[in-house]
Amino acid sequence: MEFSLKQTIEILETTPFVIESYLLRLSKEWVENNEGKDTWSPYDVLGHLIHGEKTDWMVRINIILSESENKLFKSFDRFAQLKEEQNLPIEKIILEFKNLRKKNLAELASLHITERDLSRIGVHPELGEVSLQQLLATWAVHDLGHIAQISRVMAKQYVKEVGPWEAYLGILKK
Amino acid sequence: MEFSLKQTIEILETTPFVIESYLLRLSKEWVENNEGKDTWSPYDVLGHLIHGEKTDWMVRINIILSESENKLFKSFDRFAQLKEEQNLPIEKIILEFKNLRKKNLAELASLHITERDLSRIGVHPELGEVSLQQLLATWAVHDLGHIAQISRVMAKQYVKEVGPWEAYLGILKK
Repeated sequence: MEFSLKQTIEILETTPFVIESYLLRLSKEWVENNEGKDTWSPYDVLGHLIHGEKTDWMVRINIILSESENKLFKSFDRFAQLKEEQNLPIEKIILEFKNLRKKNLAELASLHITERDLSRIGVHPELGEVSLQQLLATWAVHDLGHIAQISRVMAKQYVKEVGPWEAYLGILKK
Repeated sequence: MEFSLKQTIEILETTPFVIESYLLRLSKEWVENNEGKDTWSPYDVLGHLIHGEKTDWMVRINIILSESENKLFKSFDRFAQLKEEQNLPIEKIILEFKNLRKKNLAELASLHITERDLSRIGVHPELGEVSLQQLLATWAVHDLGHIAQISRVMAKQYVKEVGPWEAYLGILKK
């Protein structure tokens, strides 16, 4: 599939609804259990997505599109959410994510990104030069990856409970 | 996490809403592209889930709980959906899945499964003896696995588009 701004935004718009339908009605254990020491629960994943909305995606898009000559991105703190308030109810953090994503997509729309803008460049602190198009594609794939992670973390809670079926359930081996 | 009938049903109830929020608003390419020859698109995955609702889960639960001495399950055709009508619009097959799952969960509730029932046994054609509890846990994990698969298949559509970020996106390596 080739990059399309419209189709990328479809994914970015969809994610908050997927997260909400996934996590809003589940009991605490599904949402707060993780895969073991130093791994993330679905709750932690959502905190990470929120942190990205606040500090990463739009900030980097604005660096790429700015007139400034300094195109270097700051490193993204992938563990920031683990330092934050962990006791907010899931409804609150789902709502926060929905609102932040909505605001960011409104800002994105207001930039009226052109074909030419898509090839503009920023500098990632580790990866080097990246284009706006690559950043937008990554934002969408990052969402999809974390929805898969939420699924895997919850599936693993039942690794012992499925008995011999474990052999058929690839998700439990990941 | 230990098995709980209530918490298992939470996942089974949630899945149709996750699938709906995920696939209802996306354009055809996200829903119908796959990972390459002999792999499944999100559309195919949904057909597989529907086939399971029709022929697998409740049928096997009823075999386990029946008075009959023959506890052998039929093999599940994991490729059945590929032989079926492939041209129904996604809205129709999402609705079909929602309705089938609702009907099956109503039937499950009507069985008033007890602690003792959970240890009753059926015979899987390849895995041998399995308990009702293991079957119910597997039904839920199977859902979660296929939501992860849908995420992965869609993510892979952009494997080239993310450029150097591919290195950081574990979902693209699965």
